[in-house]
Amino acid sequence: MTSTASPNAALIAEINELKIKLAEKEAQLQPEGVVSKKSKKKSQANMIETEPVQGCRDFPPEEMRVRNYLFGVFRETARKFGFEEYDAPLLESEELYVRKAGEEITEQMYNFVTKGGHRVTLRPEMTPSLVRLQLAKGRSLLLPAKWYSIPQCWRYETISRGRRREHYQWNMDIVGVKGVAAEVELICAACAAMEALGLTAKDVGVKVNSRKLLQCALLGAGVPDNLFAAVCVVVDKMEKLPEEEIRCELRDLGLDGHQIDDIIRTLNLKSIDGFDKTLYDKNGALSELADFFEQVKTYGYGDWIVFDASVVRGLAYYTGIVFEAFDRSGEFRAICGGGRYDNLFSLYGSPQPVPCVGFGFGDCVIVELLRKKKLLEPLAHKVDDVVIPFSEDMRGYALGVLKKLRDQGRSADIILDSKKMAQAFSYADRIGANRAILIAPDETKDGMVRVKMLREEKDDESSRGTLVRLEDL
Amino acid sequence: MTSTASPNAALIAEINELKIKLAEKEAQLQPEGVVSKKSKKKSQANMIETEPVQGCRDFPPEEMRVRNYLFGVFRETARKFGFEEYDAPLLESEELYVRKAGEEITEQMYNFVTKGGHRVTLRPEMTPSLVRLQLAKGRSLLLPAKWYSIPQCWRYETISRGRRREHYQWNMDIVGVKGVAAEVELICAACAAMEALGLTAKDVGVKVNSRKLLQCALLGAGVPDNLFAAVCVVVDKMEKLPEEEIRCELRDLGLDGHQIDDIIRTLNLKSIDGFDKTLYDKNGALSELADFFEQVKTYGYGDWIVFDASVVRGLAYYTGIVFEAFDRSGEFRAICGGGRYDNLFSLYGSPQPVPCVGFGFGDCVIVELLRKKKLLEPLAHKVDDVVIPFSEDMRGYALGVLKKLRDQGRSADIILDSKKMAQAFSYADRIGANRAILIAPDETKDGMVRVKMLREEKDDESSRGTLVRLEDL
Repeated sequence: MTSTASPNAALIAEINELKIKLAEKEAQLQPEGVVSKKSKKKSQANMIETEPVQGCRDFPPEEMRVRNYLFGVFRETARKFGFEEYDAPLLESEELYVRKAGEEITEQMYNFVTKGGHRVTLRPEMTPSLVRLQLAKGRSLLLPAKWYSIPQCWRYETISRGRRREHYQWNMDIVGVKGVAAEVELICAACAAMEALGLTAKDVGVKVNSRKLLQCALLGAGVPDNLFAAVCVVVDKMEKLPEEEIRCELRDLGLDGHQIDDIIRTLNLKSIDGFDKTLYDKNGALSELADFFEQVKTYGYGDWIVFDASVVRGLAYYTGIVFEAFDRSGEFRAICGGGRYDNLFSLYGSPQPVPCVGFGFGDCVIVELLRKKKLLEPLAHKVDDVVIPFSEDMRGYALGVLKKLRDQGRSADIILDSKKMAQAFSYADRIGANRAILIAPDETKDGMVRVKMLREEKDDESSRGTLVRLEDL
Repeated sequence: MTSTASPNAALIAEINELKIKLAEKEAQLQPEGVVSKKSKKKSQANMIETEPVQGCRDFPPEEMRVRNYLFGVFRETARKFGFEEYDAPLLESEELYVRKAGEEITEQMYNFVTKGGHRVTLRPEMTPSLVRLQLAKGRSLLLPAKWYSIPQCWRYETISRGRRREHYQWNMDIVGVKGVAAEVELICAACAAMEALGLTAKDVGVKVNSRKLLQCALLGAGVPDNLFAAVCVVVDKMEKLPEEEIRCELRDLGLDGHQIDDIIRTLNLKSIDGFDKTLYDKNGALSELADFFEQVKTYGYGDWIVFDASVVRGLAYYTGIVFEAFDRSGEFRAICGGGRYDNLFSLYGSPQPVPCVGFGFGDCVIVELLRKKKLLEPLAHKVDDVVIPFSEDMRGYALGVLKKLRDQGRSADIILDSKKMAQAFSYADRIGANRAILIAPDETKDGMVRVKMLREEKDDESSRGTLVRLEDL
């Protein structure tokens, strides 16, 4: 670092030139539609675009209440299950996701190059950040660790314009536990959250499988173990693509027809009993699954879980039990999904392997399902009290009352603009106030205010409200 | 839309070529330092970079507890004051910020071009999104509206590498109120939050000014009103830059020496009484300020506020009263800041003007201040119970006990890997458990479990724990 002239100076000049050219070309593009179609009804020519960036959601208060209700259930479940919350920057280095390539997730990253020349991306998922944070702790990380987060995750999908590019995803992970007790704990947490949202085992099931079964099939068929992750990524698309395409992709990986037959047969087995124990328990796959089902049953969520050999999940890094929750009507995509990933720490350079289990639980499908099942009651804004000064002269007195109410822990609002009484009551009604506290000179000179209950049946006697001493308020 | 061939095809090909060239050049760049210096101690060659992207913070559980505590105070204050929460995508269209140019904020945007050719940015601040959401509501928006949010906001600062590029900012806004009652409500909310955090008027003050005073000075000196916002942006830098540079920038705006003298004189007046009422109350500036101070005093935060003619705030859109909270020791940057912005709706194309007041309250300075004042006690992870099976045979019974505890609303954990008793107690201690519930065959056959209080003084009698019937747990 002896030279003060940056070695980058010439390069940066070239890059800037390229960027200008790029921006010029891009400016000539027909925009992809920054926003959804419906937004084109601008109320006047000068109006800014009021829709959010395409694929993103706004959360005005009525939507925010739904989100807060849902996140509240996630947090409360995590608390009951003894998980600690963490968070990471939504901007991560691109390389964090490139290492575990093979999935669509890396192709669909919301990535860009910063002004400083660094390749970054809006995080497509949270697990790599979790592992990064835990690796950063080094020896100070004590295991097992039960961590949760509710990050916003991003995918850039170019083609299907209607699809969302962001969602929130409740992530729960247990790091440092080898046995299925960890999977049991996680599935039970997911079920407990759904139960708290009003769903039952009649509405939702959780399909469970183990990738170790597929691993046995691959070993039995003589497929090299280093193809395992890639095969899993391919067969995950089984429900979306015709079998012929799956076969084609597996052939591209170097598998022959017999090997592919073996894999597909394994995926189609309908019960654990259908598996040959001498073949499929070499790596403990069957015993683990049996143990898992027994424990979940004992905990009380046996009705929710079902074995399904076709579930493998799309992420390359899963190594053992995988699961996904689905609505039994079959109308929606998976509600949540997860599994064991015992190799990711090693892949990221951890000196020793660290066993992990985790799930991601998105905020979109669950809300659609709750809406369909009429389990999302309209959530209204509510305040306890609204203080109404009869005139601007009374504002000072009203401010004192307002502070007194808030100091008691009550939520209290005040009429901020001088308003007619009818308008004040209309405002009180709109914000869902429970009581109106009327501040008028006749009463305040005696240290009294008038309290009117707004949520009770009207009757003549109380229509003017009840006189209450200020100190009793 | 009759042609199926995209008019963009050729352009896209050209763009892709440019992008490849750009990526090649960028790959040759010396990285700016993706991460801060301290991270270079990788524990082994193969290890991923464990530090977050430069300028960003990780929130492992111990940091997350601090954030949750702080945000909890923000939310609770907003609730008491009757505000509703909202949120918007952190990705916004770049043009949303370009309209109100003049501030550094647009120069420091974390902006990029999406794969679809759209110029977007990580939001530098929340107010434009708030206005966008409210404009989107059109006639269904009822005023006044009291909205709050705690968004993460981003700035790309190229030079000073130590500075943060993201922070969280509690935003509180009142839309639709002309009078100073709105400013009073907001300042009181900011003070109430600081008070709830343990701060007093001895620790923190709130400097208050009105840009209308400066507007009077400009009018008096014959400066055109359309220069008002730009002048405010310049004089905001008064404390950071030498007066000569300020004068220079004002001259660049087209002001002459006398006009500049008038402005600087106004900024240096030390009390409201120093202002000539005939000159500075033409637009109501002085009366409003007097009214404001009176109301805040009545509410109970009179000790916190102080008039300061030099405070103008850096955002171009403020039009009236502006304020910022500061630590009285003078050690830190502003804790929070805000003001009235009556023109932003119109600037964004609203058919009628909509009066607004708001503040932003960042999460960084306040935490530094609380740490310095020793007002942030260490927050530990805590669970109510940890269930300890004496052996794997007892896991089934233990799972039933675990569910029972959680169904009671208690936070309960379980030993997930089979462990020696000493290790189990060490884990219980680490996670801050209050009780250990021991599950052993001798007792469970009688329907009993042993409960050991972990936070009480040891005594011989209770060292083995107390026998409790399962139904009494």
